[in-house]
Amino acid sequence: MNNVIIGQSGGPTAAINASVAGAYVKAKELGANKVFGMIHGIEGLLQGEFIDLDKYLSDPTNVELLKRTPASVLGTCRYKLPEASVDNSVYKQIFEILDKYNIDSFFYIGGNDSMDTIMKLSDYSSSHGYDKQFIGIPKTIDNDLPITDHCPGFGSSAKYIATSVKELIRDNQASDPRNPAIVIVEIMGRNAGWLAAAASLCTSDDCSGPDAIYLPEIPFDMDDFMNYAKELSKGHKPALIVISEGIKLADGRYVCELNGNVETDTFGHKQMSAASRVLADKLTNELGLRTRTVELSTLQRSAAHTSSLTDVKEAYQCGVQAVIAANEKKTGKMVIMKRMMENTADYPYICVYDTYDIHAIANFEKKVPVEWITDNKRGLTQSFEHYARPLICGEVMPIMSGGLPRHLIIPEAL
Amino acid sequence: MNNVIIGQSGGPTAAINASVAGAYVKAKELGANKVFGMIHGIEGLLQGEFIDLDKYLSDPTNVELLKRTPASVLGTCRYKLPEASVDNSVYKQIFEILDKYNIDSFFYIGGNDSMDTIMKLSDYSSSHGYDKQFIGIPKTIDNDLPITDHCPGFGSSAKYIATSVKELIRDNQASDPRNPAIVIVEIMGRNAGWLAAAASLCTSDDCSGPDAIYLPEIPFDMDDFMNYAKELSKGHKPALIVISEGIKLADGRYVCELNGNVETDTFGHKQMSAASRVLADKLTNELGLRTRTVELSTLQRSAAHTSSLTDVKEAYQCGVQAVIAANEKKTGKMVIMKRMMENTADYPYICVYDTYDIHAIANFEKKVPVEWITDNKRGLTQSFEHYARPLICGEVMPIMSGGLPRHLIIPEAL
Repeated sequence: MNNVIIGQSGGPTAAINASVAGAYVKAKELGANKVFGMIHGIEGLLQGEFIDLDKYLSDPTNVELLKRTPASVLGTCRYKLPEASVDNSVYKQIFEILDKYNIDSFFYIGGNDSMDTIMKLSDYSSSHGYDKQFIGIPKTIDNDLPITDHCPGFGSSAKYIATSVKELIRDNQASDPRNPAIVIVEIMGRNAGWLAAAASLCTSDDCSGPDAIYLPEIPFDMDDFMNYAKELSKGHKPALIVISEGIKLADGRYVCELNGNVETDTFGHKQMSAASRVLADKLTNELGLRTRTVELSTLQRSAAHTSSLTDVKEAYQCGVQAVIAANEKKTGKMVIMKRMMENTADYPYICVYDTYDIHAIANFEKKVPVEWITDNKRGLTQSFEHYARPLICGEVMPIMSGGLPRHLIIPEAL
Repeated sequence: MNNVIIGQSGGPTAAINASVAGAYVKAKELGANKVFGMIHGIEGLLQGEFIDLDKYLSDPTNVELLKRTPASVLGTCRYKLPEASVDNSVYKQIFEILDKYNIDSFFYIGGNDSMDTIMKLSDYSSSHGYDKQFIGIPKTIDNDLPITDHCPGFGSSAKYIATSVKELIRDNQASDPRNPAIVIVEIMGRNAGWLAAAASLCTSDDCSGPDAIYLPEIPFDMDDFMNYAKELSKGHKPALIVISEGIKLADGRYVCELNGNVETDTFGHKQMSAASRVLADKLTNELGLRTRTVELSTLQRSAAHTSSLTDVKEAYQCGVQAVIAANEKKTGKMVIMKRMMENTADYPYICVYDTYDIHAIANFEKKVPVEWITDNKRGLTQSFEHYARPLICGEVMPIMSGGLPRHLIIPEAL
């Protein structure tokens, strides 16, 4: 195997670095002389910013540390390649670098936009007679890539969310019953509600679970929400409601846009309220209810201290499989995961790997099936649990020092 | 030992239930026939709501589970006893219950307000010739009780905060360097900045740490803050700033009150912005900087999934020591912890237990010493690290099931 290069792109996850680890280890095993890492993805590559990963990963302890390090260790970027037919100068530049450094295989770890990059580079490569391989490695907490059963990064975020929501419910239920609050927890997911749905996994005999979960897959019914909250408050019990940040009314307006006095800063940027804040304000102003909002914010994509072992192993293996595919001269593919059994009988959970044509993946997104949403539109059916439960199972022990998890740092990326 | 009763009061913590476990186990060992638990503290007791803890804790596995369960398992309350000289009816009611159930020892786990309860009950008991013991067990994430070196609950919150801030810094530093953000993390602490200070513990060779930490112990200088943020933005590097929710200007106004358009709801409640939001808005509107705010909210007091072993052990031992003190006929005391060595040489860390007159503790609060704040007012000196580091060390393995930590539930408290 000739030299290879790996890059990370888009939003970070808790497991994204495990894919770098897997690709590095497998490429070395298959005889790659150099395994390069792009600093801040393709934007860094275009500036000539990439490093020899031997510098950090030839020590196996560092490989273990990397699996436990959240957020793109090589740095990320958000860069969309122009169409080669419109502007091919960037393509020429990239292929000059690849040729100069004898790089035959190019791996990009990311979500929808990153797969667009793999598709365009692979198409350019094929149409210009290059013998190079471009393989995508899936990664997104949003779990919205099509074809693959699920995406590395989702399981760890889902585990963090279900754990945190369970703890928030404990906290809220312990409070003074003479003054109960409705807590609204806001979770990432603009168009796909996979992460908000994951909050349902905390429901069990030791936790009543969220009182409602609202996903962006179906229109948000404000009247129903207000009536339900009123109903909840009649019981004088603390309650907790989970929402996706991207919930929308039937007329298409985002709930987060509903606050009357949206301010505009001096640069013309809208200062949007969080959707949770909009709903909490309505409950307080119109029903006089005590509320609290919790936004899990970027915590939910960086909480490697409670990663899912299943997720980290799969992220690692996706890196391994990408290298195997390139070694078999495949190109224009993304690694996908397939579940071996039907959702209704998926214990024990078994996942196998394959690759799939990137053209069917790039720029498409997969949503939570509406038939997995309960009839009252406020919860998830057991089909969701069958799907998601195995993905959050198993724990990765962090490597602790001074009471805190250790991380691997690549100073060139800082 | 006759029958005893235990209650929990004030804000929950990740370690508060370990004190229940310790008191229960020790009281049983010393021959107590019944160990009762008040449901929702003294408010529940006044309604006759208390249970025999044997029902849940006679199984040692449940005792282990209880140590790992966040938030007051018995439920909490916020109730201030009237002065007995003004209204002694509540006192009569309480002592009737204690007499009826042959309860000689009364343990209350809580912070400042809860110690006020212990003080008043103990004073009433002594002045009315009762032979009963009232002992306080310290608990507060705020770490602001005087006399004791530190408070159970603080170490676990501090560990969660330092871990989360470290992960947030990783996340932010991985982002696209062409579009860096200043992240403002808001941490609990109205008057005492112990928890915000704990964010400094993530600074090490694998983490640059927060770029600034602002505590409520010293006036917040808005001009200095804005100039510093401007300075940070010149480096085109992502930055992260930590603030206590309670930071105030020199004129006494809370930063969270500074947003011009404070709205008032139909019940006349002020809808205050978070201090982090006020500062982020200023940075965006006046300097054009990209910002993000993260409020750790109630997550920071309920995150038992990453408890400090030191903290949980100490919380347990405070429960044990309270029972020992009552058995020795002490009353009107709180259990305190003493560090055996000077702060400058406190490795290995050794902590011993004692009790102290509740009159010197109730209603007083302890702040971060200003000499532990750096001269630039934006950080903590090494004295703080020497003090706080041992308190976050060691991990408690949660008992996992289905990918999530198990909790002990006492249905009577729900």
